[in-house]
Amino acid sequence: MGILTVFENISLDGYFSGVSGDFTWAQSSSHDPEWDQFVAGNASGGGILLFGRITYQIMESYWPSPVAAKRDPVVAERINTRPKIVFSKTLDNVSWSNTQLMKADLEAEICKLKAEPDLCITVLGSGSIALQLTQAGLVDEYHFVVNPVILGSGRTLFGSIEQTMRLSLKTSRMFENGNVYLTYSTSSLKESGS
Amino acid sequence: MGILTVFENISLDGYFSGVSGDFTWAQSSSHDPEWDQFVAGNASGGGILLFGRITYQIMESYWPSPVAAKRDPVVAERINTRPKIVFSKTLDNVSWSNTQLMKADLEAEICKLKAEPDLCITVLGSGSIALQLTQAGLVDEYHFVVNPVILGSGRTLFGSIEQTMRLSLKTSRMFENGNVYLTYSTSSLKESGS
Repeated sequence: MGILTVFENISLDGYFSGVSGDFTWAQSSSHDPEWDQFVAGNASGGGILLFGRITYQIMESYWPSPVAAKRDPVVAERINTRPKIVFSKTLDNVSWSNTQLMKADLEAEICKLKAEPDLCITVLGSGSIALQLTQAGLVDEYHFVVNPVILGSGRTLFGSIEQTMRLSLKTSRMFENGNVYLTYSTSSLKESGS
Repeated sequence: MGILTVFENISLDGYFSGVSGDFTWAQSSSHDPEWDQFVAGNASGGGILLFGRITYQIMESYWPSPVAAKRDPVVAERINTRPKIVFSKTLDNVSWSNTQLMKADLEAEICKLKAEPDLCITVLGSGSIALQLTQAGLVDEYHFVVNPVILGSGRTLFGSIEQTMRLSLKTSRMFENGNVYLTYSTSSLKESGS
């Protein structure tokens, strides 16, 4: 079976995005070589990146650009060559390299992908996709970068969850720039059938 | 100068309480001796505990009771003897040992207490008190126990903050029961004057 991971920057008050889609608060101001290495390592991981339209368009407008090639050459090269899927009913075409546009049923397509052995699929940002996959019980792991920031308002990932979900903490890692990386699995939920 | 700390259990989606004031999600189901020791250590710390009416009444109804003495004897003994203040305009009297009821201006009273050298004051729960003190710039540290739980809805601590607040991560500690204890200071905010 494949593994579906939801990877999100979150604020201390639980938002993955500002009200108007702002992500700049998740860009650390202090230089931290260990963090840079962590980001580059993530970008070079195997598997497919999965996006909704809004996050995709933010990423597509930055990573293939000359600015990204100059500012973040390692991450840009890796993310541009990585296989990517964007789910959107309104987009007609995509220009980012190695990207497939899917308009069909999200859950059905993800179930098909997850049937492939050892395939890793990672949702980045893309709140509505993350929520749909959470509600469908298709998420295996959540990886959160808890930023040392309180936003006060914003978009939450889990606004329509009706039942409390208990996760299993797997790892915790603290960075010099104040970020804390926490990984959780949903396996205990699935084992107990809740 | 004294130090004012806000100590809160939070869910992964940033709530410190369920919609109807529920805190049961923050009671770990799995036995973890290291966690029990951490809780007992916190309870025996010096300084004053500070409450709003709602959290105070929940605590007052539990800790002095025979159930608490049987179930959590160490924490009960320590928290019952610790000096406590509850701020409330509606309460007429308090029955919990070593508790002072204050009806006067919260900010002015806290400023007076903080003028005492080396006095530690800790807000537990008490969302509206925590918010008022945050907005008044009187909080020196936030200590969060991030529970491995997604609530979907609840009460947030920072719903009326209008400006993004950036904190300084001080420590991170992971527990077997899935809780992660994160401590932050606001000192960089105060230094930069924002």
